Amino acid sequence: MSTTTAPQGTGGPPADVDAPRAWRRGSGEVDDATLRRIEKWWRAANFMSVGQIYLLDNPLLRRPLSRDDVKPRLLGHWGTTPGLNFLYAHLNRAIAERQQSTIYVTGPGHGGPGLVASAYLDGTYSEVYSDITEDEEGLRRLFRQFSFPGGIPSHVAPETPGSIHEGGELGYALSHAYGAAFDNPDLLVAAVVGDGEAETGPLATSWHSNKFVNPRQDGIVLPILHLNGYKIANPTVLARISDDELEALMVGYGHKPHVFVAGFDDEDDLSIHRRFAALLDEVLDEIADIKERAARGDESRPMYPMIVLRSPKGWTGPAEIDGKKTTGSWRAHQVPLASARDTPEHLAVLEEWLQSYRPAELFDATGRIDDDLRRINPVGDLRMSANPQANGGLLLKDLRLPDFRDFAQDVPAPGATISEAPRVLGQYLTEVIRRNPDNFRIFGPDETASNRLQAVYEVTDKQWNADFLGADVDEHMSRAGRVMEMLSEHQCQGWLEGYLLTGRHGLFTSYEAFIHIVDSMFNQHAKWLKVTNHIPWRRPIASLNYLLSSHVWRQDHNGFSHQDPGFIDHVVNKKAEVVRVYLPPDANTLLSTYDHCLRSRQYVNVVVSGKQPAPNFLTMDQAVAHCTRGLGIWEWAGTEVPGEEPDVVLGAAGDVPTLEVLAAADILRRELPDLKVRVVNVVDLMRLQDEREHPHGLSDREFDTIFTADRPVVFAYHGYPWLIHRLTYRRNGHKNLHVRGYKEEGTTTTPFDMVMLNDLDRFHLVIDVIDHVKGLRASQAGLRQRMVDARLAARQHTREHGEDLPELRDWVWPDAGDAAAEGEIAATVFTGGDNE
Amino acid sequence: MSTTTAPQGTGGPPADVDAPRAWRRGSGEVDDATLRRIEKWWRAANFMSVGQIYLLDNPLLRRPLSRDDVKPRLLGHWGTTPGLNFLYAHLNRAIAERQQSTIYVTGPGHGGPGLVASAYLDGTYSEVYSDITEDEEGLRRLFRQFSFPGGIPSHVAPETPGSIHEGGELGYALSHAYGAAFDNPDLLVAAVVGDGEAETGPLATSWHSNKFVNPRQDGIVLPILHLNGYKIANPTVLARISDDELEALMVGYGHKPHVFVAGFDDEDDLSIHRRFAALLDEVLDEIADIKERAARGDESRPMYPMIVLRSPKGWTGPAEIDGKKTTGSWRAHQVPLASARDTPEHLAVLEEWLQSYRPAELFDATGRIDDDLRRINPVGDLRMSANPQANGGLLLKDLRLPDFRDFAQDVPAPGATISEAPRVLGQYLTEVIRRNPDNFRIFGPDETASNRLQAVYEVTDKQWNADFLGADVDEHMSRAGRVMEMLSEHQCQGWLEGYLLTGRHGLFTSYEAFIHIVDSMFNQHAKWLKVTNHIPWRRPIASLNYLLSSHVWRQDHNGFSHQDPGFIDHVVNKKAEVVRVYLPPDANTLLSTYDHCLRSRQYVNVVVSGKQPAPNFLTMDQAVAHCTRGLGIWEWAGTEVPGEEPDVVLGAAGDVPTLEVLAAADILRRELPDLKVRVVNVVDLMRLQDEREHPHGLSDREFDTIFTADRPVVFAYHGYPWLIHRLTYRRNGHKNLHVRGYKEEGTTTTPFDMVMLNDLDRFHLVIDVIDHVKGLRASQAGLRQRMVDARLAARQHTREHGEDLPELRDWVWPDAGDAAAEGEIAATVFTGGDNE
Repeated sequence: MSTTTAPQGTGGPPADVDAPRAWRRGSGEVDDATLRRIEKWWRAANFMSVGQIYLLDNPLLRRPLSRDDVKPRLLGHWGTTPGLNFLYAHLNRAIAERQQSTIYVTGPGHGGPGLVASAYLDGTYSEVYSDITEDEEGLRRLFRQFSFPGGIPSHVAPETPGSIHEGGELGYALSHAYGAAFDNPDLLVAAVVGDGEAETGPLATSWHSNKFVNPRQDGIVLPILHLNGYKIANPTVLARISDDELEALMVGYGHKPHVFVAGFDDEDDLSIHRRFAALLDEVLDEIADIKERAARGDESRPMYPMIVLRSPKGWTGPAEIDGKKTTGSWRAHQVPLASARDTPEHLAVLEEWLQSYRPAELFDATGRIDDDLRRINPVGDLRMSANPQANGGLLLKDLRLPDFRDFAQDVPAPGATISEAPRVLGQYLTEVIRRNPDNFRIFGPDETASNRLQAVYEVTDKQWNADFLGADVDEHMSRAGRVMEMLSEHQCQGWLEGYLLTGRHGLFTSYEAFIHIVDSMFNQHAKWLKVTNHIPWRRPIASLNYLLSSHVWRQDHNGFSHQDPGFIDHVVNKKAEVVRVYLPPDANTLLSTYDHCLRSRQYVNVVVSGKQPAPNFLTMDQAVAHCTRGLGIWEWAGTEVPGEEPDVVLGAAGDVPTLEVLAAADILRRELPDLKVRVVNVVDLMRLQDEREHPHGLSDREFDTIFTADRPVVFAYHGYPWLIHRLTYRRNGHKNLHVRGYKEEGTTTTPFDMVMLNDLDRFHLVIDVIDHVKGLRASQAGLRQRMVDARLAARQHTREHGEDLPELRDWVWPDAGDAAAEGEIAATVFTGGDNE
Repeated sequence: MSTTTAPQGTGGPPADVDAPRAWRRGSGEVDDATLRRIEKWWRAANFMSVGQIYLLDNPLLRRPLSRDDVKPRLLGHWGTTPGLNFLYAHLNRAIAERQQSTIYVTGPGHGGPGLVASAYLDGTYSEVYSDITEDEEGLRRLFRQFSFPGGIPSHVAPETPGSIHEGGELGYALSHAYGAAFDNPDLLVAAVVGDGEAETGPLATSWHSNKFVNPRQDGIVLPILHLNGYKIANPTVLARISDDELEALMVGYGHKPHVFVAGFDDEDDLSIHRRFAALLDEVLDEIADIKERAARGDESRPMYPMIVLRSPKGWTGPAEIDGKKTTGSWRAHQVPLASARDTPEHLAVLEEWLQSYRPAELFDATGRIDDDLRRINPVGDLRMSANPQANGGLLLKDLRLPDFRDFAQDVPAPGATISEAPRVLGQYLTEVIRRNPDNFRIFGPDETASNRLQAVYEVTDKQWNADFLGADVDEHMSRAGRVMEMLSEHQCQGWLEGYLLTGRHGLFTSYEAFIHIVDSMFNQHAKWLKVTNHIPWRRPIASLNYLLSSHVWRQDHNGFSHQDPGFIDHVVNKKAEVVRVYLPPDANTLLSTYDHCLRSRQYVNVVVSGKQPAPNFLTMDQAVAHCTRGLGIWEWAGTEVPGEEPDVVLGAAGDVPTLEVLAAADILRRELPDLKVRVVNVVDLMRLQDEREHPHGLSDREFDTIFTADRPVVFAYHGYPWLIHRLTYRRNGHKNLHVRGYKEEGTTTTPFDMVMLNDLDRFHLVIDVIDHVKGLRASQAGLRQRMVDARLAARQHTREHGEDLPELRDWVWPDAGDAAAEGEIAATVFTGGDNE
């Protein structure tokens, strides 16, 4: 498959979809009784949404509404909610009829009350939260808990059954939806996109996801653009362009738009539901056609249908409040009657509003939901709130992993061979893909090959469903494959999140600097994981794994704009229970690390490993031991005397720092053979932290055993140096810790000059040792000056020749020299015209 | 203007554009002599681009190309470059003819060599870099310096004359372009959008910028979508959809597309230029029509023209290399002949390629550019590389600022009055806008009112140029105004950057959590500022000012997903010389801080100030003094004895922490009247840092004077607590520093419970004091237990009543009580139905 460009589906799951179990067609016009149930269901959901926002008590309005029934702090968002409820009600009807597995992604996640109400109405809520019973007391609790201390969030959240999408931060609904659809051939994902959300960048590009989905082997995403016209305080852009422009935009995005305009006030109750049910059936039948065509073998991209639902913001709410238009305006966004508790006229409006839903028709005397309206609910797992796809841990299967030791790089002596670590990882991933053809994917912004994972193309392709032009340009591309590449970090992250949240595995490979593009998405995912750790019915999902292999130190083609190691700093701000950071120093440690990451659950694993040829230092056995400990002393590199404290500790975290520390150790052992140098390497950055701060943290005693309590530690770190201080400031030896790292001193230069610019180079590390070990500064002034001179000479050479001094560029660990002389060095060096 | 919704232009610059000086029409068909010059100019730019990527010497190929003429490390990106040069050449011709002030925004910023070549060809380069002379030696230097140690970056960068856009990180070309166009009625911004870049989220939404620009009072952006078909290793999405879909997409975005397909190999040299020149003239004439119509008073949104340029990637380069299609494929992305130095066949291809541009026709015997081809260059400031708009500091005018003291809140005693600080700032900004009607704008994602700046609507509106529906829903909106709101942080940031880079002023107000959405954009802007500080011909620009007023501690409507104070951590990773962080504790300090920010240059100023009603502590005179010092002892709040060291220091940074620290100080003075407590408040966070690390840093002596060298310091901080440790780990007293801050412990709760969850509350601060002041733990076990009980009682109350205990919520500084009794309290409290 390494060179195929034929657009047939290859590399995907086995083709067992010849006789579709899903994707049935509708059974014709919806009868009035069903429409009446939909209408009633919608009314019930709206009533319960208003109840959640406003009511502390009196949930069924059995007595006149009083001030004390109203919550003292009114929080939440009404505006988007009734539209969400409308869609949910109609989808319920269609799902029940077609028995179509469906999940619901709520782009406007602030419509939380609607999704909670819907989950209650289909019975799921009381199943997962048994104290929220299906009676008046349950309703009282349900209303009260909403956005209340100790209760549930006001947004659609991990606490909401049926959700894989927080929605508090807008923009990722479609990316999440497509992530859920990949490799779920029988799943329909109804993705509501808010028209506010639609203005965000990530959402604006995520429409193009339809060029990356396979109509046979993946599920179908049905985008529903909910045009309610207003944001917090402004109209929305898409609601204020002409119908022609909006339709053109959707066609341009590759969709067939079906526009539905809610009748606002001039349409009777059933007519609007009849119209929408018919439209939904038309759309779902179109989707069934697409699926049937694909099952017959035509996997080319269709124009997928999508729905535009134009309805008033705050639909069914008070038309005006205090003489100002409310429904159908931005004033309905949040809590339209914010002073309902303290203003009797507003309290009356609230009561009238609640009564307009005729709760007596919706609940029986005990507060139990009316049986008739329940009849549109699907049953069991077909309920959108109960669909196991939305609680992916339920479906998660362990990856069938090869033994990573089989991909070990031969290391006859430390530094005796050279590898591009991610390229070796790529070989391992090739086998991972071979063994897991339908639940593992690699995501990246056009960089899988640049990041050296191209071995995977031996067994799979990049999935692509836009046009193909021919084998001479479309390498490793086909209509189905395990690699997803679009030049949008937002898309990659969102797709992967959706894929993980529905119970699958994957990794995201990106440039280190530009992973900051998804800082905010990472935040939300980490928060999701943190919260779900404490929700018993949520089952653990696979970790989100990053591979950052185009890192800060080697942006040879790009320079300063591409240098930023700060994602690690960003990540470690999140809860220790969900974040892990690894800096494997060579290929074997990368293999061991990644094996661990792919087995883990509920973490975000950040792995930084450069893609340039670099020495291998540890045999596989050593690598496994080193990674298991997370950090350790490299005795072979130091000059300590067993049983004695070293004079100085040289620490490193990261591949480039490790190389420079070893080169410094080499200089020191030659120049100061009596100096007792300990070399420490850190793979698992969280080991540096206090055990009280992070589950991986070392105890102070362990820390002192490795770093000593009082000897100078010269530490070379991959990223911003102060992170090491932040992680270790409580340690005994912290005042002796001297960290070198990246300090925004990048420019256009060569690799060695780059480390020199940031004082991370071997010469400067030796200078640091001389400056910090007592007595050396005076006694070794000559050596110190030679180090200064060596740096100047190195820089002068790069300025003149455009490349580093060969003896610096090609330096090898001295013990490796012998092996090298025997022809071992560079045995696995790969060069050539790979793009960077 | 506070309630106008009429769509006429108001609130903008004076209407002095009745007789347009710019926007002339073209003079008809372009003659062959001119076309020949364009062709030659293009050839010269391409030749020089290839030269920069490959050549160390022999720039004019006066002798056969040898191995040593080729750079040892070949870096850069060829693929996009010839297309950029093509556009530049044609724009030059049109600009010269129409005398139209124009800047060029290079979305595919990796095409750096092209823009450097163009700036050299129009003479600018040698003007700003006098060592790059217009002769063979100058060419040699120009070629050599490209992506070479000590030389220039491979991307379009601050070093590139004519650029306001780095382009290393893709996605912001159109946002920057529109930012440049605002309030520049005579400026044409030619914005090249790469088709790779077009896949990013920010770019995908930035097309909608045309709904926010005013055709009369703003300039015109001409987007040019450069469809060269490939990214690093993949085709691009927009190049692989049907022509119909692409055209629909552009129409949907509100543009009139003009598609140009380069003739590839089957078109003679002049014909393609004739076709493109005609198309460009047609487009520019359409723009002239739009401008004329707008000048006559029709400011409604036109369908702005845009160009689709479909051309082969690596256009004019080697068709094949080693039998593989190169030009017209992703293989042309970077350096197509990466082994030119070491492979004689490749060296020959390189030489042939260079010679194909016939350099002897392009340069005279001395290496001077041919006079004939120069003739298409515009002159002086009309050269795109020399346009002062692209070096905005040249045009920057100081803001005419009102005296911020005029907006002072009355503070008869500390805490005696209450304000919403940003609302007070809004009053000040109202006057700023009044006095600076054409060079100051406020940007925000639909949150200007939510963030309490709505006073500005007394003098201006939100600028909007999509449809209007009527005064009952379209409040404070018109076709021209000083406030720019779109629900995209990327757009707000990009617009503001473009506006600042072209010499204007502004601020960006956003939710604290979601400002992380632009982490990466902030990075690039901070890097830009850092680099331009060291480029003599770049003049300083106004600072980029953030106002984060919906902050982590008060996400009452939203909860956990909206809590993240980490932007500060992100910001302080950047060069100290360009970043400033302010945490004003009340309204008067916010006024003083912002006055400072608006006067500053070349910084990124991050100001965090909550929007909820909160006490005022400092009179304006005190506030000015406090802000000038950046931090200081609040003697009135402490109980120290003059001349004696305190027993404990209570420190605070941030408004909520300040309140809790004062409440703790209040408890301590009542409960432990003999304890000598010092209260310190920090406004300028960078003061905590070492003077060697940051220009605002305190010396160790100053630091010790305030925080003492050995007394316990209990510090309440707005954000993640470890940042304070990171800033102070070198300080003498660091081991005695105990920091409380946000630790991802948010949930759905009340404001006081929120601070309790994170141990930042007054009771816990008192517990910290008891635990850390020697002897207190033993002697004050009773008080400690009362604090623990008080916390439990507070939490119990919130769980039961849904709001905080009134005595906690309404606590006032005791000295304020007297004033309050006299009716002063809450004099400036604002409440009501503002959206959050």
